[in-house]
Amino acid sequence: MPLPTVTRAAVLHGPEDLRVEEIPLRPPGPGDVLVEVDAVGVCGSDMHYFAHGRNGANQLRRPTVLGHEASGTVVAAGPEASLEAGTRVAIEPAVGCGACATCRSGRYNLCPAGTCFGSPPTHGVLVTHVVAPARAVHPLPDTIPLELGALIEPLAVAVWAVRRAEIAVGHRVLVTGAGPIGLLVAQAARAAGAAEVIVTDVNDARLARARKLGATQVVNTATQDLELADMDRLVECSAHPAALWQGIRTLGPAARATVVGQAAPAVDGLPLAHLQRWEIDLVTAFRYAHAFPTALSLAADGRVDLASLLTGRFPLAHAADALRAPVLDATHLKVVIRPDGTSV
Amino acid sequence: MPLPTVTRAAVLHGPEDLRVEEIPLRPPGPGDVLVEVDAVGVCGSDMHYFAHGRNGANQLRRPTVLGHEASGTVVAAGPEASLEAGTRVAIEPAVGCGACATCRSGRYNLCPAGTCFGSPPTHGVLVTHVVAPARAVHPLPDTIPLELGALIEPLAVAVWAVRRAEIAVGHRVLVTGAGPIGLLVAQAARAAGAAEVIVTDVNDARLARARKLGATQVVNTATQDLELADMDRLVECSAHPAALWQGIRTLGPAARATVVGQAAPAVDGLPLAHLQRWEIDLVTAFRYAHAFPTALSLAADGRVDLASLLTGRFPLAHAADALRAPVLDATHLKVVIRPDGTSV
Amino acid sequence: MPLPTVTRAAVLHGPEDLRVEEIPLRPPGPGDVLVEVDAVGVCGSDMHYFAHGRNGANQLRRPTVLGHEASGTVVAAGPEASLEAGTRVAIEPAVGCGACATCRSGRYNLCPAGTCFGSPPTHGVLVTHVVAPARAVHPLPDTIPLELGALIEPLAVAVWAVRRAEIAVGHRVLVTGAGPIGLLVAQAARAAGAAEVIVTDVNDARLARARKLGATQVVNTATQDLELADMDRLVECSAHPAALWQGIRTLGPAARATVVGQAAPAVDGLPLAHLQRWEIDLVTAFRYAHAFPTALSLAADGRVDLASLLTGRFPLAHAADALRAPVLDATHLKVVIRPDGTSV
Amino acid sequence: MPLPTVTRAAVLHGPEDLRVEEIPLRPPGPGDVLVEVDAVGVCGSDMHYFAHGRNGANQLRRPTVLGHEASGTVVAAGPEASLEAGTRVAIEPAVGCGACATCRSGRYNLCPAGTCFGSPPTHGVLVTHVVAPARAVHPLPDTIPLELGALIEPLAVAVWAVRRAEIAVGHRVLVTGAGPIGLLVAQAARAAGAAEVIVTDVNDARLARARKLGATQVVNTATQDLELADMDRLVECSAHPAALWQGIRTLGPAARATVVGQAAPAVDGLPLAHLQRWEIDLVTAFRYAHAFPTALSLAADGRVDLASLLTGRFPLAHAADALRAPVLDATHLKVVIRPDGTSV
Repeated sequence: MPLPTVTRAAVLHGPEDLRVEEIPLRPPGPGDVLVEVDAVGVCGSDMHYFAHGRNGANQLRRPTVLGHEASGTVVAAGPEASLEAGTRVAIEPAVGCGACATCRSGRYNLCPAGTCFGSPPTHGVLVTHVVAPARAVHPLPDTIPLELGALIEPLAVAVWAVRRAEIAVGHRVLVTGAGPIGLLVAQAARAAGAAEVIVTDVNDARLARARKLGATQVVNTATQDLELADMDRLVECSAHPAALWQGIRTLGPAARATVVGQAAPAVDGLPLAHLQRWEIDLVTAFRYAHAFPTALSLAADGRVDLASLLTGRFPLAHAADALRAPVLDATHLKVVIRPDGTSV
Repeated sequence: MPLPTVTRAAVLHGPEDLRVEEIPLRPPGPGDVLVEVDAVGVCGSDMHYFAHGRNGANQLRRPTVLGHEASGTVVAAGPEASLEAGTRVAIEPAVGCGACATCRSGRYNLCPAGTCFGSPPTHGVLVTHVVAPARAVHPLPDTIPLELGALIEPLAVAVWAVRRAEIAVGHRVLVTGAGPIGLLVAQAARAAGAAEVIVTDVNDARLARARKLGATQVVNTATQDLELADMDRLVECSAHPAALWQGIRTLGPAARATVVGQAAPAVDGLPLAHLQRWEIDLVTAFRYAHAFPTALSLAADGRVDLASLLTGRFPLAHAADALRAPVLDATHLKVVIRPDGTSV
Repeated sequence: MPLPTVTRAAVLHGPEDLRVEEIPLRPPGPGDVLVEVDAVGVCGSDMHYFAHGRNGANQLRRPTVLGHEASGTVVAAGPEASLEAGTRVAIEPAVGCGACATCRSGRYNLCPAGTCFGSPPTHGVLVTHVVAPARAVHPLPDTIPLELGALIEPLAVAVWAVRRAEIAVGHRVLVTGAGPIGLLVAQAARAAGAAEVIVTDVNDARLARARKLGATQVVNTATQDLELADMDRLVECSAHPAALWQGIRTLGPAARATVVGQAAPAVDGLPLAHLQRWEIDLVTAFRYAHAFPTALSLAADGRVDLASLLTGRFPLAHAADALRAPVLDATHLKVVIRPDGTSV
Repeated sequence: MPLPTVTRAAVLHGPEDLRVEEIPLRPPGPGDVLVEVDAVGVCGSDMHYFAHGRNGANQLRRPTVLGHEASGTVVAAGPEASLEAGTRVAIEPAVGCGACATCRSGRYNLCPAGTCFGSPPTHGVLVTHVVAPARAVHPLPDTIPLELGALIEPLAVAVWAVRRAEIAVGHRVLVTGAGPIGLLVAQAARAAGAAEVIVTDVNDARLARARKLGATQVVNTATQDLELADMDRLVECSAHPAALWQGIRTLGPAARATVVGQAAPAVDGLPLAHLQRWEIDLVTAFRYAHAFPTALSLAADGRVDLASLLTGRFPLAHAADALRAPVLDATHLKVVIRPDGTSV
């Protein structure tokens, strides 16, 4: 059977202007595989691009396919790529150039030359078929349903955050923000041996979800004081500086604060004297490196529950609705778009 | 009520010569507490002293009270010690001098001047009452029965072993030896996020126990080949050099082997070229530092099951039987001796 | 010869109100030594207390002896202290309580209960005689003149900063600020193997000094652009947020910024998105732990030049002049006050 | 000018059977450069292959060009390689496959699929011209003479050893063995801030050289006792187990022993109980990763003296003499072979 030469794709032309179109599909080159996409998760960054035509410092300058959280099935492999057709996979959207000093040191997430699926101007995975480098394609264990494979990418964010946070057995961990990333970080922190995982948010439904997923305590900071002290770790997942500063105040000597939520270019009110008096380290997490295998292992044996985070499904034709859903309905956690691969 | 001035104690006078006697008890000094002992675990080192009058390089030279794994209840506190009478505690038997450079650096387990309860010539905790420094006495969470408090000490060994082994989320871990320490290391490794914990031993009953306690795979190396490769971590708990060398062969590049089982003075057959070709680190664990709080947290919420390890109870009068029990009956894991504090 | 029971001391009663007075001197207790002070360095914090009656969050509330950078000679030792009379020493002013979890973990500089000589309300070392714990008293190698022993304390700050900064062989290091601490950090960074040490300041005389002391490049940021990229480490010693933000912009992926200069309570303009994009860690240094021995070794064999930093000497009677000198004359780097121990 | 299609090469056909022959030279492919070789250092492994037809576990099975320590000048670059003709370079002989998990983690020296110039059956650099991947070719700073560029490879071994040894400012370091690697490790350790670098050997001439190159103390272990205690680090460069065990005995609590000298497959007498009592880590160093840039910086500004190690030069035609020289004359440290590139 000949390989498809076109794919249907959700192309963003401008703010609120998402069009499902056919675009050309190159054949898999050396080291590449062709994947039929099953599910694509919607992330906050996708929603920013859709709503505003930009995300942080990165602006949409020409029509670009969105999406970077995908699962699918291998259809064909190019030369020097060894994955078999039929293999169920999760796709890692940013794997670095592989050749620069940063990549070679192991921190490929920081590659200055790297691209990321769905980060304009690089086309994303909101397509029926995509070509990806074999090293970006991770086979799914049997116990992970294909659809949930789209949630391995956000879980990899959480795994990397926990690694950057240096969470160890017995730690008392504060997670600020109970969105999808916060809920995954809370689960991954618990899997890393945290004795306590305390989750804050301003939404009681999300906090209830956090409780079900293993948080040992939850605090609605809109209505309750955050009366904590001597915490070992803070993982900031809310993208609110106030939560960061408030969280830092709960930390003890030699503790560590890790910023995972998308950071603003300039933030006021850094409590530097407090950080210095207690030598609290302030670090950040950007995407992930070497985290997909760990994410797969956590999901495969149920130590992390992905299914509970999936709150909505949309066909590719209704991708725009998916990109609006979490804004319109705050009970949504993670929605996925399901391209129908048979339709091309 | 006046404090007791004597205590009953199991005093080792020589090989197989253990006598329950009354010995004087000093009042708690500044920073000390007086503890009524509830349960004392029997460890391999106790059994060595009892059987041979020596353990490794350390020889019994004068009559010494055995025992270093104890739980009990605070009876009184000396000046500058703030624990309340009635507090249920586990006792950390070796806390270092607190003043030397090694202690001040945080590695008090390596204190050159340090003593350890029950390590001759320092008297141990196989007594009805003992005086200990307050910093060695850790309150038990409500969910831990007093008797099981005696198993916090071996769990602290396992916690420290896992820390020295640098086990992280997603690691594939081999634990050689399914005695009490191996079974606790396996559980602690799992609590630290290990994706796989494979336990080896030559005793099927112990391996079955390992399986129940969370090992993802068990191998009887007396009857099966150890067909593993690319393991991330080895934690050697069997005290057999053959297990160490065999375990090292299963490790991948940049892996780490940690020796917890009591080491012999000189071991032949070190596969140094293999270690070098793959830069496998060979490290060791000696007692523990800062591990009791973590051990308490793991036991308190059930992430580590202590009750399953407790296979026998003996009164102080029959302490010698307790010290022989695990030798006579290989199904024993951990036996405890229960001094009856009311009898003095 | 009986021990002195009083000492002369420079006591701060309020802003600009420093009085040289006799105050009582307790005999050395268990573990203490009595030191005849030879030289005391003047630090920015001393100057703040003298000028404003406060330093950062700490306010003078009752008359307090200033000074925390001292050298001297042991006169007598209390019980359980083994230093011989006549030993030349540098005094470490803050050694922690030694008993809390933070101290026991090795980070005694962060002890919540700790005091520091000369940090109100704790009396300092601007005295002819002082009693200090033996563990705070470090013998001077023969090659370090007694007077320069007073500069071991700021060198210890630099040693700890370099350790917190994780400077390693081959690193390219930016040091912002060429005051005494910056000049010591630059030398310590070079001693740690930094391939490049680039120092910035707004004062050409200080930059010339930095050049002489081993900086591989200097930049006057008042007159020149800071055209650097891909630096490995920033050590901020100027206490100016602008220098910190500017310095962070020169760092490459996975780099590390360390704040040593005294930090303000709230700082605006944190470039958090930039830190996150490149996973640049922001850490701080507070005093030092276990750094005096290393500082002594660096000064003893000339890898760090202390003598070049010493620009003024004042008798105790003119201590106020010493505390004004660096403000009145910007060419001063480090001035010392020389109590005359024979005068009591 | 057309590129050469053949090169002269020193080909080992069997023990003591080294023939200088013409062999075909492929044109530089994508990402490759063609280098005219200037100097090639002789290493112990070359001498083993030459004398015995094997080195450790690796056996010569077909005629192979020897040599892995080379400097030279870029003649031409293939597609996608950006080095200019005329660039003076040192060649890194083993850079890993670049694609496996080990390479991607940053530890490319441990790549299971990697090859190394001059490690049979991979041809080496004892040639007039060689094609190498651009990422293996490091430009020489102007201050390093081209001939000495051949010594960057052994210096990279030392840099990596010091990194694996975790040598930090103030450490007391023992280096066992004063051959070329030991002398480079001693210098690199000093550059990393070691307060003391004590070198042992059984050859007084080598020890005198160590003294000149910055060792703070030397000990001839054939004639003197090694009376050291509480050392922080051991770096074993002699390949003698006795030196390793003796060196380990000098280490203090929590110290680290690093084996750099070529290790035997099985070594007897491991003092495991001693390692365990003091938690001394036993680690190894294999080649190097990311060490060439640091080696170049150390040689460029004279912190490491390479010229003093160069004790002999041989033309390619006399390569066999070079391979015998250090055996016949123990005063040799490093000899180089100088292919004459103009002769092809």
